[in-house]
Amino acid sequence: MRYDYVTDGTEIYRRSFEIIRAEADLSGMPDDVADVAVRMIHAAAQTDLPASMAWSDGFVTAARNALNAGAPILCDSQMVASGIIRSRLPGDNEVVCLLGTPEVAAHAADRGTTKTAAAVELWLPRLAGAVVAIGNAPTALFHLLEVVEESGVKPAAVVGIPVGFVGAAESKEALIANGLGLDYLVLRGRRGGSAITSAAINALSRPGI
Amino acid sequence: MRYDYVTDGTEIYRRSFEIIRAEADLSGMPDDVADVAVRMIHAAAQTDLPASMAWSDGFVTAARNALNAGAPILCDSQMVASGIIRSRLPGDNEVVCLLGTPEVAAHAADRGTTKTAAAVELWLPRLAGAVVAIGNAPTALFHLLEVVEESGVKPAAVVGIPVGFVGAAESKEALIANGLGLDYLVLRGRRGGSAITSAAINALSRPGI
Repeated sequence: MRYDYVTDGTEIYRRSFEIIRAEADLSGMPDDVADVAVRMIHAAAQTDLPASMAWSDGFVTAARNALNAGAPILCDSQMVASGIIRSRLPGDNEVVCLLGTPEVAAHAADRGTTKTAAAVELWLPRLAGAVVAIGNAPTALFHLLEVVEESGVKPAAVVGIPVGFVGAAESKEALIANGLGLDYLVLRGRRGGSAITSAAINALSRPGI
Repeated sequence: MRYDYVTDGTEIYRRSFEIIRAEADLSGMPDDVADVAVRMIHAAAQTDLPASMAWSDGFVTAARNALNAGAPILCDSQMVASGIIRSRLPGDNEVVCLLGTPEVAAHAADRGTTKTAAAVELWLPRLAGAVVAIGNAPTALFHLLEVVEESGVKPAAVVGIPVGFVGAAESKEALIANGLGLDYLVLRGRRGGSAITSAAINALSRPGI
């Protein structure tokens, strides 16, 4: 038996984006944010994401400028890093995930902190002007805010879309309320995850399909 | 400023699973499927997944027996492979994702097929008794059904949770309706993705947190 289904990748993308634009309410957002929203909706297959999205006015421009200038992308999990489509990146950008490296385990042991916190602290040498992509751990997002405040070192833009039942919603509200001048994109509430987060980075990397 | 949040990973898991069991309706499923559902809900942070879940009677037992016996896990995307927690695997199981390998590109070119289809065909030498984890491409799930029917080679269990607007729901209904005797776990509809899929594998790998 052969099934009847579309096998052409570009055609699947085209039809998917057409369905999303027909079904999703993108009216509350500027065009450049809507382009990012479409790809996030595509990753989650949920058209109601826009109602939960929040962003700073300068976010898309800041993120795009940083990526074009070759900024590194600092990811809180290997799944986020895996989801970033390397061929879309405009500036040969380094995709960094330190979690799981021996460096992080050693730093965590030295400082008596968690590996998640250690991984965020070890971003510091690359953090200025970077694009941060947090799609898993609320603790990484909370600790990023602490590290930025304590160090004065600022990333260019923060995609803050951790997922879960404990701390996720709260960490995203903390990012929105940040008094640090950080440009951000957030999906409020419990929902989030690596696929939505890397989809946002993929949208920012290059316009279009 | 220091934020007040839980940093202990085990405690975050414990509280998360407590919230899930309080909020989700798991009454329609046997205990062993409910344990898998809890971890899938955790990955998506959406408590309404159980209403969309479908499974064959023997699925959990078949998948656990295969994993315990050291069966490979065949993944349709690198994100699914990344999300599988290696330390939970009971049988030193190989986690396989062929998409992106030169082997797949060459096979696709030779056969005039897509890389997704080529990757599924190249599973064949490892497919008998394997655990399949499809969390991205509906085309991979459709083609798996075709390959199993044509070859007569059967995996032990199929986690079929592709995501998207084009073909995802249909591919999952095709798996449910399969006349091939395949044991399956499915999240019906558009929703799915790598995080939910690897969470199911992580739950099957070892009971508990």
